[in-house]
Amino acid sequence: MSIIVVGSMAFDDIETPFGKSNRIIGGAGTYIAYAATQFVEEVKQVSVVGYDFPEEELKELSRRGVEMDAVEIVPDQKSFFWAGKYHHDMNTRDTLVTELNVLGDFKPVIPESYQGAEFLMLGNLAPSVQLSVINQLVVRPRLIALDTMNFWMDVALPELEEVISKVDVLLVNDSEARQLSAQYSLVKAARKILSMGPRFLIIKKGEHGALLFHENQVFVAPALPLDEVFDPTGAGDTFAGGFIGYLAKTGDISFENMKKAIIAGSALASFCVEKFGTTRLKEISSFDIQDRVKTFKDLTNYETEL
Amino acid sequence: MSIIVVGSMAFDDIETPFGKSNRIIGGAGTYIAYAATQFVEEVKQVSVVGYDFPEEELKELSRRGVEMDAVEIVPDQKSFFWAGKYHHDMNTRDTLVTELNVLGDFKPVIPESYQGAEFLMLGNLAPSVQLSVINQLVVRPRLIALDTMNFWMDVALPELEEVISKVDVLLVNDSEARQLSAQYSLVKAARKILSMGPRFLIIKKGEHGALLFHENQVFVAPALPLDEVFDPTGAGDTFAGGFIGYLAKTGDISFENMKKAIIAGSALASFCVEKFGTTRLKEISSFDIQDRVKTFKDLTNYETEL
Repeated sequence: MSIIVVGSMAFDDIETPFGKSNRIIGGAGTYIAYAATQFVEEVKQVSVVGYDFPEEELKELSRRGVEMDAVEIVPDQKSFFWAGKYHHDMNTRDTLVTELNVLGDFKPVIPESYQGAEFLMLGNLAPSVQLSVINQLVVRPRLIALDTMNFWMDVALPELEEVISKVDVLLVNDSEARQLSAQYSLVKAARKILSMGPRFLIIKKGEHGALLFHENQVFVAPALPLDEVFDPTGAGDTFAGGFIGYLAKTGDISFENMKKAIIAGSALASFCVEKFGTTRLKEISSFDIQDRVKTFKDLTNYETEL
Repeated sequence: MSIIVVGSMAFDDIETPFGKSNRIIGGAGTYIAYAATQFVEEVKQVSVVGYDFPEEELKELSRRGVEMDAVEIVPDQKSFFWAGKYHHDMNTRDTLVTELNVLGDFKPVIPESYQGAEFLMLGNLAPSVQLSVINQLVVRPRLIALDTMNFWMDVALPELEEVISKVDVLLVNDSEARQLSAQYSLVKAARKILSMGPRFLIIKKGEHGALLFHENQVFVAPALPLDEVFDPTGAGDTFAGGFIGYLAKTGDISFENMKKAIIAGSALASFCVEKFGTTRLKEISSFDIQDRVKTFKDLTNYETEL
């Protein structure tokens, strides 16, 4: 089944305790596309880039099955650029530079060829942009998933609440879940957020794994204990891409299958952080992924009877 | 099989965002004993209390199978007293008062009747006291587990390292594992700590669950997502008590069985935090525990094949 992916395609400067990268390819949409195409080839990308975005990167994505009809190339502007520096704990970071460039007045137009897609993955972007995509779809997709961040809670809460009310799955991290719900307990936060519209809530906890909430059910997914997180940039987007990609591959949007989709997303995210940017996502094979998925299973496996 | 439990028995004043408790029964040894006796009746307690420690509490522990031959009652001194206040996140706390009292010159004497115990659980105490217990045992127990805290890393590191080198299982939380190993990555921290003596390392992460490391193997145990943590005091001790109690019940100290022991400890700890002090541990039945263990299984359960 096909997925519309909406998200930024950008340049990143990243500094971690392990090194620096200089203007590498990044952006939520890029990571989501590289992750989702590990499971499905029908990815319909919605994004905007400037004249400086490398053509070979667009070709590489096309080669992997990503449709580019709605990736606007603005001839007289630069691509979105972000520079950040991670602290030693790799969980917190400082944003050093944000240059919106082409993203400043991004108004996505959904082409006729994208209509009828079964899945919609709204990567982290202005809620008004995410909303405009939903409103342009003639038939509502079977499943709409939305990723967002605390920034939009600070500057555009009413729009964010509106778009959240229209989606099936919301993905946020633990501090964002707390901010959005004004509840410290994640169980209470989940209950509040599920009352705002989404039927499913995924709370990403980085090195502590992820939680999936649906009605009165909870699933706890582990994170792979890693020797070293080399670069956490894009891990959340990669998780989202693996999650939606697995759902689209299987066509099954039950709670049981979402658990497996979360493991798929977690496995891809665990690769993503091993090298700078999208490097690792481009290298891995389906064999690597199956192997990692087995490692995830072994992590939490124990005999049932105590 | 029988367990020697070494740990404080004390009074606590606890303040949480949900309320205050006034001089309730606490102490690592108390929590460990209440937890371990959920699985075995042969618990041989080593502790010290003052004239003020309630006789009915000692009787209640005896009723549950706890031998009191090495619980010294000092007639002219008060019991150990600790007062603390939890922050809103329930993960951090300020110590308001520490009165060592009888614990100040606690020199445990292991009676003849305790010799030959198969398991030894050293609760958080001065490393020199923990070491003196090991040295008094004529036959080394099959398994020695040790719980400690950052305080001893600050003030008694050489003694702590000595006692750590003599145990089979070390239990610490994530920040303590990082402090002890001078490694930020928990995988690297575990490798370093396992080279210091213990064959097994358990890293407790509170609301994020626990990790078990052994050789090149890892097990990730979830924590139960809770509506509210009412009082986290004693959760780590309860975890330790449930862990060692389950191992003693089954007599199996394999890595596979330790996973199950960690689930047993996690289940008991999830009860402990529901009410102040040891209240909840005194109420629960083996049926409640079985039910909670099933909940833990369901939390992480998903179909194997992706």
